[in-house]
Amino acid sequence: MLRVFWAEEGGLPAGDRGLAYGDGLFETIRMQGARGTLVGRHLERMARDAARLGIEVPPAALRGAFCQAAERYGAGPKPAGWVLKLILTRGEGGRGYRAEAGLRPHLLVSASALPPSPDRHGVCVDFSRVPLTVHPMLAGIKSLNRLQQVMAARELDDSLFEVLMLNAQGELVEGTRTNLVVNRDGAWITPPTPSLAVAGVMRQWLLETLRSRGEPVLERALSPDEVLDGRCRGLYLMNSVIGIVPVRQLAGHDLPVEDRLATICDPLETLE
Amino acid sequence: MLRVFWAEEGGLPAGDRGLAYGDGLFETIRMQGARGTLVGRHLERMARDAARLGIEVPPAALRGAFCQAAERYGAGPKPAGWVLKLILTRGEGGRGYRAEAGLRPHLLVSASALPPSPDRHGVCVDFSRVPLTVHPMLAGIKSLNRLQQVMAARELDDSLFEVLMLNAQGELVEGTRTNLVVNRDGAWITPPTPSLAVAGVMRQWLLETLRSRGEPVLERALSPDEVLDGRCRGLYLMNSVIGIVPVRQLAGHDLPVEDRLATICDPLETLE
Repeated sequence: MLRVFWAEEGGLPAGDRGLAYGDGLFETIRMQGARGTLVGRHLERMARDAARLGIEVPPAALRGAFCQAAERYGAGPKPAGWVLKLILTRGEGGRGYRAEAGLRPHLLVSASALPPSPDRHGVCVDFSRVPLTVHPMLAGIKSLNRLQQVMAARELDDSLFEVLMLNAQGELVEGTRTNLVVNRDGAWITPPTPSLAVAGVMRQWLLETLRSRGEPVLERALSPDEVLDGRCRGLYLMNSVIGIVPVRQLAGHDLPVEDRLATICDPLETLE
Repeated sequence: MLRVFWAEEGGLPAGDRGLAYGDGLFETIRMQGARGTLVGRHLERMARDAARLGIEVPPAALRGAFCQAAERYGAGPKPAGWVLKLILTRGEGGRGYRAEAGLRPHLLVSASALPPSPDRHGVCVDFSRVPLTVHPMLAGIKSLNRLQQVMAARELDDSLFEVLMLNAQGELVEGTRTNLVVNRDGAWITPPTPSLAVAGVMRQWLLETLRSRGEPVLERALSPDEVLDGRCRGLYLMNSVIGIVPVRQLAGHDLPVEDRLATICDPLETLE
């Protein structure tokens, strides 16, 4: 069974495999009081990706920990915004990389303040000089192996909201902490799941919402030129904490910012 | 300056970036009492790779922590074998992946028992089904991002000492926890540093020792066929804890095991 740790009571044990090898996963959930954005999708992704890594955690245990955390940090007469972070690790033990079967997973739970809201009229971003490398067995998994994103985020300064990462094929894939979608040639285009470092729950919700509204959605590789050649009708970044934000400038090039996506999808509907 | 934590007194703080993102490095050093194998190389690699990641740690602080640890865990009248592990992280703080400059790095120090010695007459290994993906900016760095090695190590059972990983080009690169060298066509052949997930200090010591003895050493890509086609005179695995061990069987194929390497290099000479 899951062993739950509360961050304000201390960290994980020194021998935890999450620290040693990044042998685990995390979720960050935007909360409003005791309710959260896309909670079901967050917990389902964590359980599904844990299974991909061979970490045995019953989905009901994750749900139980979420409910305790929502009560612990989010109760009160005036619901305020905050961020819940769940770090799930394979636990402690094993011989080096090799884990014994049946280790008891650890869940570290913490609460933090909401980050500053991005400018809803559009943000400025650049290309990262750090290439994105995605391991085929770990694609899409929000694992604790995030060093390349840390290295890319070192390029950020206060004038840049995000940097966008290209893979070795020169395809535009995602930001350090955001997925992306491009509106072009009458369709919404986004890189396919197997190419992603993190397959975000907000991205998945957006794609499903667009499709349910009859909008054409294409999951395919994107070149940077397809954003910069003047035919792009909008570039949007998203994650479940910031929602969906338009990009008004990429690498010094102005991009069109339209209201259309906001009229189709309202991430505020995603509170559960 | 560095903040040192002793594992027996607890783990790192809950907000440590090593746990959150694998934002750090580690070294495991084979110790005999208060002396260790290739200590200078271990500490130099950690300082050099920390600099590559932008983690500011004075080499003298690492050396000081090592000396304290050697004294703390290794003092005593009868020197016995043990393993010292140093985990260096960027510390605590920053906004998500983005770290502020000037964070105070953390060093978690722990001692553990030596692993069982491998059979000096040769070990059995197999190919891993997990491909090896090396980020060009992180090549060779013994970072805390080791999830692909954990996934490959899940293929180990008690009959297998190691599994060998191939990259996307089908080249044989390294084991989960070992580097490799092949003796073939009168030369010692090993995959080049930029292709490696971890550039081991024992590998580097071995290559320098071979070259100093006038042995031909080639750092170039290796195909699995070059080990299996009958012209291979020996395949060796190495790391600084186990030393250098011959492989007598790879994926069910018998390989020649000769004494030649042992007569050229003695890893026991590396105690400092």
